[in-house]
Amino acid sequence: VHCITNEVVMNFTANVLLAAGAAPAMVIDPDEAAQFAPVADALLVNVGTVTAASAEAMRRAVAAAGPAGTPWVLDPVAVGGLTLRTELSAELVGLGPAIVRGNASEIMALAGASGGGRGVETTAGVEEAVPAARELAARVGTVVAVSGPVDHVTDGERVVTVEGGDALLTKVTGAGCALGALMAAATVVAAEPLEAAVLASGTFAAAAERAAAGARGPGSFALALLDELAAG
Amino acid sequence: VHCITNEVVMNFTANVLLAAGAAPAMVIDPDEAAQFAPVADALLVNVGTVTAASAEAMRRAVAAAGPAGTPWVLDPVAVGGLTLRTELSAELVGLGPAIVRGNASEIMALAGASGGGRGVETTAGVEEAVPAARELAARVGTVVAVSGPVDHVTDGERVVTVEGGDALLTKVTGAGCALGALMAAATVVAAEPLEAAVLASGTFAAAAERAAAGARGPGSFALALLDELAAG
Amino acid sequence: VHCITNEVVMNFTANVLLAAGAAPAMVIDPDEAAQFAPVADALLVNVGTVTAASAEAMRRAVAAAGPAGTPWVLDPVAVGGLTLRTELSAELVGLGPAIVRGNASEIMALAGASGGGRGVETTAGVEEAVPAARELAARVGTVVAVSGPVDHVTDGERVVTVEGGDALLTKVTGAGCALGALMAAATVVAAEPLEAAVLASGTFAAAAERAAAGARGPGSFALALLDELAAG
Repeated sequence: VHCITNEVVMNFTANVLLAAGAAPAMVIDPDEAAQFAPVADALLVNVGTVTAASAEAMRRAVAAAGPAGTPWVLDPVAVGGLTLRTELSAELVGLGPAIVRGNASEIMALAGASGGGRGVETTAGVEEAVPAARELAARVGTVVAVSGPVDHVTDGERVVTVEGGDALLTKVTGAGCALGALMAAATVVAAEPLEAAVLASGTFAAAAERAAAGARGPGSFALALLDELAAG
Repeated sequence: VHCITNEVVMNFTANVLLAAGAAPAMVIDPDEAAQFAPVADALLVNVGTVTAASAEAMRRAVAAAGPAGTPWVLDPVAVGGLTLRTELSAELVGLGPAIVRGNASEIMALAGASGGGRGVETTAGVEEAVPAARELAARVGTVVAVSGPVDHVTDGERVVTVEGGDALLTKVTGAGCALGALMAAATVVAAEPLEAAVLASGTFAAAAERAAAGARGPGSFALALLDELAAG
Repeated sequence: VHCITNEVVMNFTANVLLAAGAAPAMVIDPDEAAQFAPVADALLVNVGTVTAASAEAMRRAVAAAGPAGTPWVLDPVAVGGLTLRTELSAELVGLGPAIVRGNASEIMALAGASGGGRGVETTAGVEEAVPAARELAARVGTVVAVSGPVDHVTDGERVVTVEGGDALLTKVTGAGCALGALMAAATVVAAEPLEAAVLASGTFAAAAERAAAGARGPGSFALALLDELAAG
């Protein structure tokens, strides 16, 4: 799984993919990204710490992924208020992502609704974002996954909910970002993007629930989450 | 808390802030940093892996934070021998940080005294740096926190010492950097910067002491530190 | 130990060095890298997330390390298919690294043999790469370490094997990269590069074996690896 993701979560994302049995490859130079995306099994594009340089790598990778048939996932972190990532995400979502994953505020902002988020925190409830998610999915022909206490995944017609997980996920940096990477990995084994998003959400939520059972806080929870993902 | 921090510690810093109940946002593109700093509750600027590009983001964020009244913390990692970070830190310290946090060598170098550090390790004792810290704090009108076995925090007149912590903190990358981020977060709840720096130091030291009690080494210590910060 | 390494593993690499008693310094700006390499005890250059900017920092650091006598280690992550890193690694290997560390595919690619890797995963066995490693070591006058279930270290004449370790190492991002950093640190205490590479491999393998004994998965293994390295 080729990941062009944010600098905060690169390490955790790679460890989550390894634990789940996937092989992460963080190739971020624009030229190399364009070379690698066509031979990768899947691609993740996450705008969390986007700069002008990494935006170029994302554009090049996405442009190369399309003709090669590499499925890719867009994670529009904190879109809405910040210009670079908001314009880039609006551009990328029109280029055929298999899945778009975000929290309620991010999905609403990307769909053109107002979600009221600031930074990566959401102030909107998941259910509130479902109409925007359905509309966005139908309009651009993608699957949209809204993460929250209950995840909602839609292809514009069907809406699948995934329960489970744990509130400790909100205390671990990059938990949502890692879920986006897992969705990219899941496109390799699933029959269609909706199934991939649901499979990844379910796997992640179940592992999180088991991890939370023995955790004393966010540190021990993050560690146990990797152990549980590897245990399957 | 808007963090423009070094690439080594981004993940740990974000997890420390989350554990302590704050919301980290690592926005690093110069344009986005200038957009985000005014709406953030606080800003951290850490020069640990500074490049020409990130120096520009720091300058833009600081310039935007001032008029907006966003308090900000400067962490002058490894200043002294290396030109880019030393000149940048000397420039930034004159632009009104609420708090400057560093080890003894860094504070002495920033104040114009010779502290003998190489890289991020300090070769000077904390007590040795207190006169330079007081002088610097008085001269630029900021609070200076010198981290070490005993932390010393001064506004130029008062000097407050914070005991506690554990030597294992020196075996975890970015422990000091994370403390700088906590100080930024603390400015939101404290009445004044001196109180914020002391509050953050005390919280961090107490959590470190509890974490060290059950740790078998630096790996289990870092995990327990997150758990203890979250437990409050 | 001055590290110009990839963004995914910076934090883990620094923690491994700290646990092992070394002092990491991630200085990545080209000007600062050229300033720091001559005063560092050792230098690590890892091309895992290389960009045009970081390639410049690597070239500048290596050029400054040579005249100063700073020993340096090259980690040619995922060379072979991707142009920037492959050309850069081919250039750097001719500039006098003390040690080159990679997996079988990487070493074969760097030596001009075909190793069949894609991304960071190797598809070749370690034994298969030993002839290429010996040829490369003899040709450029360096020590080549091939990492795998059994590590093979050669200076072109002698081949030393190091057993131990654990399969969980392949489930932790940056385990190999951290080993490269340990080899750089070991050049400071060892009489010659071959001894440094063997010392680092042996220390890492032994710590990994002890860590694996009590681990429930890759999360708890990575933590225990740091604890065990610190315990010596």
